[in-house]
Amino acid sequence: VQAEIVTIGTELLLGEIVDTNSAWIAQAFTTIGLNLFYTTTVGDNLQRVTQVLRAALERSDVVVTTGGLGPTVDDMTRDAVAAATERGLVLNEELLAEISCFFAKHGRGMTDNNRKQAYVPEGATVIHNPVGTAPCFAVAWHGHLIISLPGVPHEMVYLMEHAVLPLLRERLGMQGIIKSRTIHTTGIGESAVDAQIGDLMQGDNPSVGTRAHPGQTDVVITAKADSEAQAEALISPVEQAIRARLGAVVYGADREQHAPAILSLLRERGLTLATVESATQGELAQELYIAAGGDPVYAAGLVIAESGGCPLGLGAEALGAAGLGSQQAADALAERARQVTGAYLGLAVVGPCAWKQGYAPLIYYCLATPEGLVRREPRTGREGPAGRGWLRHLALELVRRHLLGLEQI
Amino acid sequence: VQAEIVTIGTELLLGEIVDTNSAWIAQAFTTIGLNLFYTTTVGDNLQRVTQVLRAALERSDVVVTTGGLGPTVDDMTRDAVAAATERGLVLNEELLAEISCFFAKHGRGMTDNNRKQAYVPEGATVIHNPVGTAPCFAVAWHGHLIISLPGVPHEMVYLMEHAVLPLLRERLGMQGIIKSRTIHTTGIGESAVDAQIGDLMQGDNPSVGTRAHPGQTDVVITAKADSEAQAEALISPVEQAIRARLGAVVYGADREQHAPAILSLLRERGLTLATVESATQGELAQELYIAAGGDPVYAAGLVIAESGGCPLGLGAEALGAAGLGSQQAADALAERARQVTGAYLGLAVVGPCAWKQGYAPLIYYCLATPEGLVRREPRTGREGPAGRGWLRHLALELVRRHLLGLEQI
Repeated sequence: VQAEIVTIGTELLLGEIVDTNSAWIAQAFTTIGLNLFYTTTVGDNLQRVTQVLRAALERSDVVVTTGGLGPTVDDMTRDAVAAATERGLVLNEELLAEISCFFAKHGRGMTDNNRKQAYVPEGATVIHNPVGTAPCFAVAWHGHLIISLPGVPHEMVYLMEHAVLPLLRERLGMQGIIKSRTIHTTGIGESAVDAQIGDLMQGDNPSVGTRAHPGQTDVVITAKADSEAQAEALISPVEQAIRARLGAVVYGADREQHAPAILSLLRERGLTLATVESATQGELAQELYIAAGGDPVYAAGLVIAESGGCPLGLGAEALGAAGLGSQQAADALAERARQVTGAYLGLAVVGPCAWKQGYAPLIYYCLATPEGLVRREPRTGREGPAGRGWLRHLALELVRRHLLGLEQI
Repeated sequence: VQAEIVTIGTELLLGEIVDTNSAWIAQAFTTIGLNLFYTTTVGDNLQRVTQVLRAALERSDVVVTTGGLGPTVDDMTRDAVAAATERGLVLNEELLAEISCFFAKHGRGMTDNNRKQAYVPEGATVIHNPVGTAPCFAVAWHGHLIISLPGVPHEMVYLMEHAVLPLLRERLGMQGIIKSRTIHTTGIGESAVDAQIGDLMQGDNPSVGTRAHPGQTDVVITAKADSEAQAEALISPVEQAIRARLGAVVYGADREQHAPAILSLLRERGLTLATVESATQGELAQELYIAAGGDPVYAAGLVIAESGGCPLGLGAEALGAAGLGSQQAADALAERARQVTGAYLGLAVVGPCAWKQGYAPLIYYCLATPEGLVRREPRTGREGPAGRGWLRHLALELVRRHLLGLEQI
């Protein structure tokens, strides 16, 4: 089944916002086996939106639109869908009641513009939107289906998960399901993974493939089956075999990301962690903070200037002559992070940032514990977000391997 | 002049990466007065890419493509542009020499695939790429122009700035220029700005408009003129009038963002700053760290758990019974940030994160200085990145107003 996405909004064509909805919807399509062939962005112009929607409907079985469902004159998705599918707009009394209710509840007056939102293309299936005010709808046209969603990302995500994906499954008679298990590894490259499990990658159902990310190699097992349970039965033995082969480099699967996995290990042991970083520009603190949800298992993240000064009050006698670019500095800062925060473990990832043109300094790591310091080899910094992603994984892995009593890599 | 963008790559249609190139190019188009009508994303399929490019060329004067210029079999932009513009590919000897040189210099063997990159559509203008290996080109077709750029963002940006925008100006005979000045304000809403400068917003050239961002209202002055100097002469008196009206709420213009503006003020005075935050999840540290480029004017950013524990070693007697949700805690932490980092100023933005569903706690601010504590009113937290953006601006503004001796808002 062939699908496409149309995102509607002049703000996108002015470059005022980056469209993240398309990538989200694209990923969601892969989970139900829809093939996405095109995405198109078009501005708030009735004629152009109508043309784009008509062309999309003619060449694809399913079209999902985002944006243009608000109450203003710029919002013309309703009109364009009606025109593209050769029908008029009709007032939906139930929607009108919902919208009136919303305004009454919030003590605000309802305008004609808001009333406009209760109109949908004739024959449309209304999709109720409990997380926003823009009503959504699906329209069938010569066996093809067009579904219009709001452009606000969290509303779009909610409606995709709760209404659109189930509706697509049903309408398109998708009996079978596609289920994937993604095994996350770190500290091992894609080719080394291939070498260890290459023979397990020959199967058709489940299929097994690898995906390289910065500092992380994923193994993806995908099964097609009639039910969730059947798919799981296909995946499970292959997953066990892969885990047995790869051993300690596997840190989790599916939504178990590296930082949450480490926070779980810390919680189980009743320990707390503080970090101090320069090379990763605060991204390590942010990742752990968000994963911890503000819980004090992650006591604090300290982000320090890369050069000069006395970071966290430490001077040259503590850091050594090389400033942050030395193991001595990483050791001193990891211990200092424990001191100033009172955390049980202190993790340091320090060294100059790698994002200066053509400059690839060494980055030093240390984990300070009440029993002493744990280190791993310094690592050449890499530029950009992907480079910092590598450094974060290496830092987290230092903690994970310490907590599990595994050899450091 | 009508333009469109075509981004090419199956990875985009699988949702594996978010397309940020389109927004960047879209913004660049606005600076030379090109009207962007469509952007389309298509996968690595020769027939579909060719069809999309042909349709784009037929309806638009300028088409810019990104992606699909690499050496692998999946990279088919060269072939698709040749097919869409009805011509063959020819070997460009100069490009071949460049590519050979690159491989010789890096001591790597050159494959037939790499040689493929020296082929361009017949009659194309080659655009040399000093920041990557993928050569780029422009092809004219019945008075329309198609330009193919790599998908790697930093290469695309470099080539747009150094080659494509100048080329478009010249080819399209764009004599005039469009110049904008964006005045940044904070601590004042869009409607309050309107009320103060509404009469200055009536003009046509320059035109004046406002744009609301989280915690920041911009005033954009745009002039069309024959030269840079003429445009500046149109903008300058209006800018002065607007700055005079708005006064202290203006913190900068164009690329002078809030955090760098404050770091400049600190540098001028030879002062250093440390921050401690919970509500902003480490975003304040990251923003200031990146703006400082690792310079110790920003001594350190401390990100602390939102609840429980003893943040930075402070217990209930220092924070007060309400934990982080109090002015007492903000005061104690701002001072503690100075102590543990040795910075001259300590800024605290603390309180529970606002991103829990339906939960809007107060966020407390304090700036600790050697002369005592500077405060502003606590502020209700808001959910999401935009909400945290507000909080960051308020925190930075506390520092700016202190340094400039302005009344706190």
